[in-house]
Amino acid sequence: MHSSREGIDLRLVALVSGGKDSTYAAYLANKAGHEIVCLLSIIPPSEESHMYHYTNIHMMPTVSSAWGLPIILHHSKEDELAELEESLSLLKVDGVCTGAVASVYQKSRIENIAEKLGLETISPLWGCEPEKTLLEMVDEMDVMMVRVAADGLGKEWLGKVLDKRTAYQLIEVCRKYRIHPMGEGGEYETFVLNAPHFKKRIRVV
Amino acid sequence: MHSSREGIDLRLVALVSGGKDSTYAAYLANKAGHEIVCLLSIIPPSEESHMYHYTNIHMMPTVSSAWGLPIILHHSKEDELAELEESLSLLKVDGVCTGAVASVYQKSRIENIAEKLGLETISPLWGCEPEKTLLEMVDEMDVMMVRVAADGLGKEWLGKVLDKRTAYQLIEVCRKYRIHPMGEGGEYETFVLNAPHFKKRIRVV
Repeated sequence: MHSSREGIDLRLVALVSGGKDSTYAAYLANKAGHEIVCLLSIIPPSEESHMYHYTNIHMMPTVSSAWGLPIILHHSKEDELAELEESLSLLKVDGVCTGAVASVYQKSRIENIAEKLGLETISPLWGCEPEKTLLEMVDEMDVMMVRVAADGLGKEWLGKVLDKRTAYQLIEVCRKYRIHPMGEGGEYETFVLNAPHFKKRIRVV
Repeated sequence: MHSSREGIDLRLVALVSGGKDSTYAAYLANKAGHEIVCLLSIIPPSEESHMYHYTNIHMMPTVSSAWGLPIILHHSKEDELAELEESLSLLKVDGVCTGAVASVYQKSRIENIAEKLGLETISPLWGCEPEKTLLEMVDEMDVMMVRVAADGLGKEWLGKVLDKRTAYQLIEVCRKYRIHPMGEGGEYETFVLNAPHFKKRIRVV
């Protein structure tokens, strides 16, 4: 748990995409004694960046319902950080929970905004051991593969809900093709159907 | 303009449904010098009440994009007021803008919550002359009929974008069938495609 006020329980807004990292980060923040009070999704400007960064946008109201928490959706114009700052500045919270795993660029930009607004940044996955963490995630949550974009990851992965066995297969592929096992480079994207902190399971029909 | 601090410019969250009343109320609040800083939609619990109260839910992310403002979506469980209070208590705003036209029940329940949280309630349409206001609305905004649920209002109305002429026809129907001209009893519901304060027009394709 990365926190400059470790041990203090904070009221947090969770930056979420519907995917495994942001969802698991929020779960770990809860476990550490913090309270997630709402969700926030910044929606990229173009359809193309929708596809690239963010496969689950149309599902975010459903995600909010499954978590049992309000969600803020904010369409960004050019600079996604301006909208992040604007949304965070509207909220009465102590801090922001991020799913940052290894991207210094992403994490430091969020931290800069949070600091400016007097908010803590909690990034429970920061610096985690990725293969081990992936296996823990699929053990705790129902993680569906919703996008693949790398050599070695064909369409046979799409729609698959990972279990230990398929997660090991995924790790094998990632080792072979030198892909970050958690898909940090956008090599694959996921959507979480269920997690320990969900009030309702999401069903794909 | 109904406000207990008339003349003072407030930072407001607008309660919105995508329909004409909440949209026009926010427009009038803007005109009166207040600033709408975000939107809030409470989503009713069941599919059935979706249909009854609230036809535009799936469009709310698009509405947020058209206004150029963040939106909070909050699914209610049983009591829509609990979620309204929870969402309002998260926000750093001075008050809440409502589209209340004539429902004392609706308006007083919102006012009670706002008062408890130290927020102003701004209801620019409260006590308006409904036929006149409907004509003003269709002059300023592109208002589409998206649901009809009353004798006298057949499916020929669905999808129609009201202009002065069709608004007069609607008023005639309402007079004949004793329907509130603004559809206060849920006799019809609307979706706003464009308004003076929108950053982008919504196109129906």
